[in-house]
Amino acid sequence: MSQDLQVRVATAADSSALAQLLHDFNTEFDTPSPGPSVLAAKLEELLSTDGTFAVLAGPPPSGVALVTLRTNVWHAGPVALLDELYVSPQHRDTGIGTRLLATVFEEAARRSVDYIEVNVDEGDVDALRFYRRHGFVAEEPDTGERALYLFREGTQP
Amino acid sequence: MSQDLQVRVATAADSSALAQLLHDFNTEFDTPSPGPSVLAAKLEELLSTDGTFAVLAGPPPSGVALVTLRTNVWHAGPVALLDELYVSPQHRDTGIGTRLLATVFEEAARRSVDYIEVNVDEGDVDALRFYRRHGFVAEEPDTGERALYLFREGTQP
Repeated sequence: MSQDLQVRVATAADSSALAQLLHDFNTEFDTPSPGPSVLAAKLEELLSTDGTFAVLAGPPPSGVALVTLRTNVWHAGPVALLDELYVSPQHRDTGIGTRLLATVFEEAARRSVDYIEVNVDEGDVDALRFYRRHGFVAEEPDTGERALYLFREGTQP
Repeated sequence: MSQDLQVRVATAADSSALAQLLHDFNTEFDTPSPGPSVLAAKLEELLSTDGTFAVLAGPPPSGVALVTLRTNVWHAGPVALLDELYVSPQHRDTGIGTRLLATVFEEAARRSVDYIEVNVDEGDVDALRFYRRHGFVAEEPDTGERALYLFREGTQP
């Protein structure tokens, strides 16, 4: 039963399991991946710093949340970005996403984070509903205005 | 003439000038600010780390860009978020925004950044046009889908 799965903050020793889940995530959604072994090496490096933490559901590995922290001039503590949240297909709709997110909140609080961000595809109504249900807002309270996430590959003018 | 203004990467010694500009930014757009002196102290702290850099136009101080860096599992180097970009009203439409951004790209490259993000209000057509003109994209090239920026105050479940 998925309810018996442990959900906990990962350590560098979990890098292979985390990497496989992130690789599966990208494969499922037709996004390029450098492969589990490259990801595992990178995760082992990142998880040994203060800038990244991960949450793992398992065994067997069945869900992952990856969070990066950075400074921000408007906040006393670091702000957090939820970079990735993934639950394996066979474990969906069992509450693992909610448990992953709850553990993210706990660990963020422990690290003095008071502000968490996530970027969500506009058409992904399930994800938008999930994040709204967990306290994320897409509309500025004062203006009702939404913010778009823009990106730029490379630094050539 | 604004063309004579210097645009350069800021140091911690520029913290007061940067702080006043960020305070003016928030005041102009009716956003709370802790005030220039609190911001200056915070900037002095942040600019002494690898996680933040700023670009300043002046003297007189007339524009600012503030950038934070973080790690990312999909990128070899850090990824950058353009947190703030502001030009004082009397110096607008003179190309300072473009010069600030060009200096951001140069400094980002120097720091091995190959990916830059910015969050822009959906209704701010001038800002969206500005960033698009400088190589930022709002739509995923493959799917045409836009991503929304969501945030959450606090870490209580």
